[in-house]
Amino acid sequence: MKTVTASSANNESASDSSNNDELKNALISNFGTPCAVIDLDVVERNIARAQTLCDEAGVANRPHIKTHKSPLLANMQIAAGAQGITCQKLGEAEVMAEAGISDILLATNLLGAARSGRLAALQQQLPLKVCADNTVSLAAYAQAAKDAKRAIDVLIECDTGQQRAGVETPEEALALARYIKDEPMLNFAGVLFYPPLDGWPRTQQFFNQLATGLAELGLEAAIVSTGGTPNFCNIGNLKGATEHRAGTCIFNDLMMIKTGFATQDDCAYRVYSSVVSRAGENRGILDAGSKTLTSDTGGMEDFGLIIEHPAARIHKFAEEHGFLDLSATNHKPEVGDIVRIIPNHVCVSVNMMDQLVAVRGENIVDVIPVAARGKLV
Amino acid sequence: MKTVTASSANNESASDSSNNDELKNALISNFGTPCAVIDLDVVERNIARAQTLCDEAGVANRPHIKTHKSPLLANMQIAAGAQGITCQKLGEAEVMAEAGISDILLATNLLGAARSGRLAALQQQLPLKVCADNTVSLAAYAQAAKDAKRAIDVLIECDTGQQRAGVETPEEALALARYIKDEPMLNFAGVLFYPPLDGWPRTQQFFNQLATGLAELGLEAAIVSTGGTPNFCNIGNLKGATEHRAGTCIFNDLMMIKTGFATQDDCAYRVYSSVVSRAGENRGILDAGSKTLTSDTGGMEDFGLIIEHPAARIHKFAEEHGFLDLSATNHKPEVGDIVRIIPNHVCVSVNMMDQLVAVRGENIVDVIPVAARGKLV
Repeated sequence: MKTVTASSANNESASDSSNNDELKNALISNFGTPCAVIDLDVVERNIARAQTLCDEAGVANRPHIKTHKSPLLANMQIAAGAQGITCQKLGEAEVMAEAGISDILLATNLLGAARSGRLAALQQQLPLKVCADNTVSLAAYAQAAKDAKRAIDVLIECDTGQQRAGVETPEEALALARYIKDEPMLNFAGVLFYPPLDGWPRTQQFFNQLATGLAELGLEAAIVSTGGTPNFCNIGNLKGATEHRAGTCIFNDLMMIKTGFATQDDCAYRVYSSVVSRAGENRGILDAGSKTLTSDTGGMEDFGLIIEHPAARIHKFAEEHGFLDLSATNHKPEVGDIVRIIPNHVCVSVNMMDQLVAVRGENIVDVIPVAARGKLV
Repeated sequence: MKTVTASSANNESASDSSNNDELKNALISNFGTPCAVIDLDVVERNIARAQTLCDEAGVANRPHIKTHKSPLLANMQIAAGAQGITCQKLGEAEVMAEAGISDILLATNLLGAARSGRLAALQQQLPLKVCADNTVSLAAYAQAAKDAKRAIDVLIECDTGQQRAGVETPEEALALARYIKDEPMLNFAGVLFYPPLDGWPRTQQFFNQLATGLAELGLEAAIVSTGGTPNFCNIGNLKGATEHRAGTCIFNDLMMIKTGFATQDDCAYRVYSSVVSRAGENRGILDAGSKTLTSDTGGMEDFGLIIEHPAARIHKFAEEHGFLDLSATNHKPEVGDIVRIIPNHVCVSVNMMDQLVAVRGENIVDVIPVAARGKLV
């Protein structure tokens, strides 16, 4: 771990009301801008909070690593009590397995990975948990398990309102359970839900009906998995749930502030950006655009909050430019100023980064590779 | 170069009307999905077309490498006649310089790179061309040039309607020209425009007035640079222009089809994606979401065109899921189908990729690293 001290004279924690100048100077002289930064003090607090929420609800914690894509941070989550991790892509799981993590759930239909032979290769290395909502995926998993010479644990993905992947009725889920039961290379491991915020009663009905049908088949769902950081407000509300998968809570973002889960102080991730142009009284340009923060608004109006200038609007992006509307702020940034941006959606911004600079207060303490970034398959 | 033959029995060029099954099978078994693919036959045609358009207009071609971020492709552009390249980030220029490219224009205010010492380090290696619209940037460039012990060529960025970076009047440009003239470590090298499509007459007025003022200062703009693939329709219309910077034209995308510059056959880049779920008559899920194609709609309604199902709408993205609305198509894709997607905006999708699989017709001929991907600074 590389340690750079921003200021030996100033070891106080930075607060959002400070201008953070020591750290800004250290960041720009070591890394330039834009620069993605996480505060490890906040990260640790966020990890502990998610673990406590799961512990208190009596369910296991299986954090989704799509937010940070870092084995180092995944291992911090496991050290804090997480039972295992969730990945969305096989490539992410490969990176995590390489780092010694062995309890991995893949929460998506992995057709591309199964057909490329990579699922079989990883399953040969360690027993994975995969999920499916159709028999094409199940057949591909069975083939991968055969190739790996190791039966594979399968969860049935069920949709109770998100309208994404997942079977829509307990009957369909039972049909897949029968398929799994009849296929020697597939082990029925449980069910995967991602309930909408208001969909937990419906999820309970779905699960109860499914559990009855499973019992008739002589099966039991060892894992009943729920997901989502905003769903922490519902945790414990599904009788029979065994674990929860949440990603964003390790860093948080404006979407999590909007849902009420987080405050600005809970946001561990900031993009430091330079003001590079100020043509016009009410215009400004940042050196962070859609290739840094992405065009994902998360359903919000603008593209992030500038901590130093909360009334300044990032109203548009070019690839490497953020367009500022300064009409609502009297305290306008100048060319050369460095500002801190909290993104609307942190997961997609982290995914643009090869590395995260880790700080504690005003001190730079580490540079963490986003090792599973860009793992598409 | 790694060569994989999709089918020795089928060496015919794939057309969009074919189902491309041989190539699809070869891609999924070698790489899985999603998979970013470029057709080198189309790439070469696109490179030649841009060069011809510049040649016929009597201006030099300085392609913007932000679209492909690959030294291999940049060197193909130079071999076809390009005078040099344009980069948006210093990190991109570092990668291109490493590959032996020596004529590099950096088309943005580089405050972060200048203050981190990286601009000086690269300027020491080879003489760069940078641009600025303010004296803070100019002072940083002068300092970097001093540190590099080599004076640096500077273009003044001028805005004639994009409302991005750039001085808004010839008077402001002249003030910067005086600053450059008075600073021994800065060489006045010219002016940089990115005119709006309908802004070329205004750009001509701006330039004429500026040229007169420059002459009074004893300066001349050796480089007068225009930019943008859609602006090929205006190329030659600015008297005094010496070069054109265009990026997207090497691959093209739905935005370029919309502007009238390209047809579907000119689109060299496709994302191959598997249909992984089909819950509901009119719903489907792809394994390509915002972490593959990005949330950048380019001002269009949906998130890309599916070549096999042009009436299917990709109407929403999650990070790793594309949501299909199949209500307008009778020919609905099934789970396991592989489809080809042309993105709305190709530059931001390429930026998600560590590599591009290069094909010619139905044959996989290379895997090209996106070596300058993720270079934020």
